[in-house]
Amino acid sequence: MPLGVPTYDDILAARDRISGAIVRTPMLHFDHAGRNLWLKAEVLQRTGSFKLRGALNFIAALEPDVRERGVVAFSSGNHAQGVAVAAAEFGIPATIVMPSDAPEIKIRNTKRFGASVVSYDRANGDREAIADSIAAETGAMVVPPYDHPLTIAGQGVIGLEILEDLADAGAGGATVVVPASGGGLAAGVALVAEGSQPPIEVMVAEPKAYDDHRRSLAAGERIRVEPGELSICDASLQPIPGEITFEINRDRLAGAVVATDDEVLAAMKFAFEEAKLVVEPGGALALAAILAGQVRGDGTLVAVLSGGNVDPALMARAIG
Amino acid sequence: MPLGVPTYDDILAARDRISGAIVRTPMLHFDHAGRNLWLKAEVLQRTGSFKLRGALNFIAALEPDVRERGVVAFSSGNHAQGVAVAAAEFGIPATIVMPSDAPEIKIRNTKRFGASVVSYDRANGDREAIADSIAAETGAMVVPPYDHPLTIAGQGVIGLEILEDLADAGAGGATVVVPASGGGLAAGVALVAEGSQPPIEVMVAEPKAYDDHRRSLAAGERIRVEPGELSICDASLQPIPGEITFEINRDRLAGAVVATDDEVLAAMKFAFEEAKLVVEPGGALALAAILAGQVRGDGTLVAVLSGGNVDPALMARAIG
Repeated sequence: MPLGVPTYDDILAARDRISGAIVRTPMLHFDHAGRNLWLKAEVLQRTGSFKLRGALNFIAALEPDVRERGVVAFSSGNHAQGVAVAAAEFGIPATIVMPSDAPEIKIRNTKRFGASVVSYDRANGDREAIADSIAAETGAMVVPPYDHPLTIAGQGVIGLEILEDLADAGAGGATVVVPASGGGLAAGVALVAEGSQPPIEVMVAEPKAYDDHRRSLAAGERIRVEPGELSICDASLQPIPGEITFEINRDRLAGAVVATDDEVLAAMKFAFEEAKLVVEPGGALALAAILAGQVRGDGTLVAVLSGGNVDPALMARAIG
Repeated sequence: MPLGVPTYDDILAARDRISGAIVRTPMLHFDHAGRNLWLKAEVLQRTGSFKLRGALNFIAALEPDVRERGVVAFSSGNHAQGVAVAAAEFGIPATIVMPSDAPEIKIRNTKRFGASVVSYDRANGDREAIADSIAAETGAMVVPPYDHPLTIAGQGVIGLEILEDLADAGAGGATVVVPASGGGLAAGVALVAEGSQPPIEVMVAEPKAYDDHRRSLAAGERIRVEPGELSICDASLQPIPGEITFEINRDRLAGAVVATDDEVLAAMKFAFEEAKLVVEPGGALALAAILAGQVRGDGTLVAVLSGGNVDPALMARAIG
């Protein structure tokens, strides 16, 4: 096993560490074009996204004397909230470096959960450098948003839940589609699904303008995209897959699909009307690609709805 | 036991009948003003409301030769969708009498689930007479929206789930607040909670202008209200409690609380921001009353979010 790639046992250990502090989110069933479609409602997770799982696993695994010096993280919002709540669970200080244009709900919640927020300009600032300098000053640990085995193992717990629920439903094989930014959630789920019987294949879904996973999978190496346009998927604007996550995903993913902003808005509306769930743009990517007919075949589908932290104006635009 | 009042065993039998066709909806935990607050996310039920439970139990309990003649119902929307899906489960025809001003999403879904919709004018039409005449012509059974022991027993299944989940969480005693229109959901939950240890008390929540349960509980008899104003809670515009439901609720409810339209909108916004759930006005009544501080004490609270079928414009107004 390459250095840094967590094992299945690491994911089981993560579940033991975090299960008391997370929601085991439900899967909801729908028919879509004659196919069974399950929505993994991770928007119901505490903090409104899956990021809590990885942050909790990382912080829980720290030695107590290291942990008590506090943590620092850089994030456009969902990892920020995950780290803030995970730190609060352990009663330790957290500082989060956030872009000034992050959704207001994410900034507000991060503060409300007890973290200090340091703002930077997404166009010109270097968030990693800011986080590193805070860590150097305070002795706080940087909580990696995706490219760390403990983060990946924490996200993998969602894969355990999905496979258990598919088995309970007698679903047989399935394709699980996972929104991707750094690729940590996909990597965790792919590790769980590897070698499973009945077979479960895992695909990533990305904004069309940020299709770095699709290009990287095609090339067999990490490709950086330089999009000329922004996307409404503020949680998925990472231009290149992580190193460890891509080490995992390169050989384990069945492929990548993409969605336009309009397809994402349509998926948010579907979730509102049919599932009564609030989903943010980046969290709706998998559902968007599925509704747009990009995942071919007739087998069972799972769309992970990975986050729900969306500002009201954008939600109103999606459902209007 | 008075005629028509279901027993605890009737509710267990209802669960056996319907559990394969309903979602066992999750409870989500929040802190509210230092109290444990659980949201029973019944908006995630198929059809987007609890009404499916009672309709399924009623239709499932019919003799097959009666059932095959089909069913008819009158409803502003949630019962309509419940009956439509329950009828579809058995492959029988359903006709639903709906007010012409029902939310468009409810009318559209009722048709999409395969039912025929007959429209009437809420101000001048007599929906019960229309339904009765359809039943007389076709031999179809009228599926009662609340005032029938099988309907009440079906709704009571939600109470079994709440008490199980509270016990799993080690919650001890609790106050469960349930939106009320005809009172069937409250009656079902109250029957389950009766005599439970640790003690669970049940309260109803109503629109302030339609406080017929509050007045009836105070008077010890069914009181009809004649509100001079409408409420945005389209699912809760019943002016008088049901006969059987009030027979149950009169001696078993701990009280009634009310919410204004503004408090309901605030609860919808809370559900959007904090729980990532879409809740319709009538479905948010219990949460609205709790957030408005009307349920005193410091014990554990449960708010049943009973339905999520809201038109986009009203949702946008709530969250804006």
